[in-house]
Amino acid sequence: MANVTIWNEYRHEREDDDVAAVYPDGIHETIADGLAGDETDRDESHGHDIRTATLDEPTHGLPDDVLESTDVLLWWGHEAHDEVSEAVVDRVQQRVLEGMGLIVLHSGHYANPFKRLMGTSCSLQYREDGATERLWVVDPGHPIADGLGESIELQQTEMYGEPFDVPEPDRLVFVSWFEGGEVFRSGCCYRRGSGRIFYFRPGHETYPIYENADVRRVLRNAVDWAAPTEGAPRTFGERE
Amino acid sequence: MANVTIWNEYRHEREDDDVAAVYPDGIHETIADGLAGDETDRDESHGHDIRTATLDEPTHGLPDDVLESTDVLLWWGHEAHDEVSEAVVDRVQQRVLEGMGLIVLHSGHYANPFKRLMGTSCSLQYREDGATERLWVVDPGHPIADGLGESIELQQTEMYGEPFDVPEPDRLVFVSWFEGGEVFRSGCCYRRGSGRIFYFRPGHETYPIYENADVRRVLRNAVDWAAPTEGAPRTFGERE
Amino acid sequence: MANVTIWNEYRHEREDDDVAAVYPDGIHETIADGLAGDETDRDESHGHDIRTATLDEPTHGLPDDVLESTDVLLWWGHEAHDEVSEAVVDRVQQRVLEGMGLIVLHSGHYANPFKRLMGTSCSLQYREDGATERLWVVDPGHPIADGLGESIELQQTEMYGEPFDVPEPDRLVFVSWFEGGEVFRSGCCYRRGSGRIFYFRPGHETYPIYENADVRRVLRNAVDWAAPTEGAPRTFGERE
Amino acid sequence: MANVTIWNEYRHEREDDDVAAVYPDGIHETIADGLAGDETDRDESHGHDIRTATLDEPTHGLPDDVLESTDVLLWWGHEAHDEVSEAVVDRVQQRVLEGMGLIVLHSGHYANPFKRLMGTSCSLQYREDGATERLWVVDPGHPIADGLGESIELQQTEMYGEPFDVPEPDRLVFVSWFEGGEVFRSGCCYRRGSGRIFYFRPGHETYPIYENADVRRVLRNAVDWAAPTEGAPRTFGERE
Repeated sequence: MANVTIWNEYRHEREDDDVAAVYPDGIHETIADGLAGDETDRDESHGHDIRTATLDEPTHGLPDDVLESTDVLLWWGHEAHDEVSEAVVDRVQQRVLEGMGLIVLHSGHYANPFKRLMGTSCSLQYREDGATERLWVVDPGHPIADGLGESIELQQTEMYGEPFDVPEPDRLVFVSWFEGGEVFRSGCCYRRGSGRIFYFRPGHETYPIYENADVRRVLRNAVDWAAPTEGAPRTFGERE
Repeated sequence: MANVTIWNEYRHEREDDDVAAVYPDGIHETIADGLAGDETDRDESHGHDIRTATLDEPTHGLPDDVLESTDVLLWWGHEAHDEVSEAVVDRVQQRVLEGMGLIVLHSGHYANPFKRLMGTSCSLQYREDGATERLWVVDPGHPIADGLGESIELQQTEMYGEPFDVPEPDRLVFVSWFEGGEVFRSGCCYRRGSGRIFYFRPGHETYPIYENADVRRVLRNAVDWAAPTEGAPRTFGERE
Repeated sequence: MANVTIWNEYRHEREDDDVAAVYPDGIHETIADGLAGDETDRDESHGHDIRTATLDEPTHGLPDDVLESTDVLLWWGHEAHDEVSEAVVDRVQQRVLEGMGLIVLHSGHYANPFKRLMGTSCSLQYREDGATERLWVVDPGHPIADGLGESIELQQTEMYGEPFDVPEPDRLVFVSWFEGGEVFRSGCCYRRGSGRIFYFRPGHETYPIYENADVRRVLRNAVDWAAPTEGAPRTFGERE
Repeated sequence: MANVTIWNEYRHEREDDDVAAVYPDGIHETIADGLAGDETDRDESHGHDIRTATLDEPTHGLPDDVLESTDVLLWWGHEAHDEVSEAVVDRVQQRVLEGMGLIVLHSGHYANPFKRLMGTSCSLQYREDGATERLWVVDPGHPIADGLGESIELQQTEMYGEPFDVPEPDRLVFVSWFEGGEVFRSGCCYRRGSGRIFYFRPGHETYPIYENADVRRVLRNAVDWAAPTEGAPRTFGERE
């Protein structure tokens, strides 16, 4: 039972008819539906409390009390990364170090909270060709892979290719194969401070990726995995 | 709710009066008591089904059906590592790769299942001096540290010193300080196949280490951490 | 200037005309040629002392004095892994822990020295379809990638697919894309004891993989990377 | 033969007589002497080209052409971390991602280039008590440990204690034991982008730590380890 906040830039859906056709209520609402589960795939353990927040709300929908009470934050952004205030980026980073889980989606690789926590450029290669992607489970024992088959297939997607300029993941869960000839480390686990971070590649705004049952299962698993545990004291400073 | 099997060599306790005075029913029974919890420290989430097994039982108490139905195996051994049959070592290794958790205690660093899974000598330095050990939590966000303070203090213990010839841990949770001047990586997490492995240093047979409340808490946390998750298929061999 | 020993099972080449056509003097000789470099690609720093050894020589060509004086051992085997004596497997493992580098090639994923050092099954999926493989450099800063382009392309090869049951690599250098739809972690770095281990996937016996200039470059780089450094004492046992 | 730049805040030495007594020409000059080697300990392979730079020089002594031509940068700072301009911090980070080595010393754990690259708070505990520290080599096979004994002893030093809020190191080389009862991960290796980073704990300004022969050896080894290799292209952006 985690408190989940889904953050979405929520610009494409309001500016572009093609995107609105795919995500009429915004990507955040589709993700929220997926986290809630559905009848054919409902899992008792996923009864999370789910909120959404978007860029153009006051404080981007992430005032201190929201972040303070968030166990796991999902982040989707693309064209307006630099409109997120430094104060909110600071606070997200701080909350992750304190234990909040962070799940970064697709073009969120360039989001400032993610770049801040990685310490690298988070650059990659890409091609918007609408070709097939297959995400292979390279770590079948990982809880984020619970209930999946050997791979996830997405018929149409944007390609992301290596090199992906991130620190070596603590744990690599998925590697993508792309029809056009590239590969990508598509599911990367990190811990920073007491917080768990999961980068998950799928999710372009012009394809209904977040309606895919396997993608939804991954997001539910990732929320369970990223939720904070109790831990021991993080006490710093001068000792007697 | 995991099925836990505590394996103990159970020789010292029957051969040596000093050890019998500390662990009259065997180290395994004291560990079992600790896993069950006690009134001042009971935690609802620790309602595991606990069995014990010892070296001198038939098949060392670990016939196939026991291993098959074990979620987490704890292992304490010291003077008779080589009396454990190759068949049982093989089967323990296989079960870990399939997902069974393995918690290796103290002198179990030289147990054949552990050496097999590590691929190294697992050698270390030691001195049986009964001096103080302090285990520092170096990873306060790890679930194995849940509910601990900043360190665990053991008044009298055998010293283990570096170098410890194991692969770099996936995650280092504890580092020990010893009164005599040494340090040791005392809590080391690994994954092999789908199985989680935790090596935990404390536990000499002549000191009542497994009655220490913090040590018991670590073992309970470690059982929760090491329990298998569902995962994805581990399918190997020829593809069409 | 490392002392390099190239070990080859050397059975396919003597039993199968198709293999003999590709590797008339044995895979080991072709690898040796590649390590020596050639005129268009010669690098002053690769002046290693190169020996070969094969399964059917006495002690498999690896008596103690050869292993003792080997800095980096390359290993190619396929159909006769279990004919390698336990004594030689033990000694190779021991030498790696002491600092000898080990480069394991292709079907050597099932070689006993590699399985021994990994502690896992080292299983994978495969398909002998002679289709195209592209190895992407996912870690451009790694010395094993020195002088490569963004990927290596092999026109015809056997496919290896995930999951690959090995411990999470310390460092992942290559990920392969296969024409048939699979991916594979094709270049995996490990340290065990003081020794460096590199698993490199390419190398089927019916394709002239070891004549490829990029593959040869990787092997030369890997030898440089795996050569032992001086280090500090590995002292184990009782301390005063 | 690396181009080495030693950066020092160089304030304590000019402001405080006690510090000036230990490091009359500045910590950077003492480190430079150590890198150059001395007669009893000279090693032919350490013929680096060494420069120094300090905070109060224009552009902190690190204009673009200096950073551009630096292979390995050492960094000592303490009381004026926030006086380093964002532009220089940005450029140091960028250069590390491109391959420049970075060696961060002692109180440099709070330097902005290090925090930027780690993505964490880099906080720790400390006590300035002038007691003994013993740095144990926990990874005897690491090149940074070349030529050391099993530990390094410093008679008087400031204590740093866990938890140390950094990402799990790629490789942990040293763990410190402190007379007062604490431990610390004192030698931590990271890679970020194509650059190698080494954090090394010893170095308080009121003790002649950088005159210690073992500390000097570690710094020389670390420079060799951190020097860039050739690598493969880091090409990002849109693909055809």
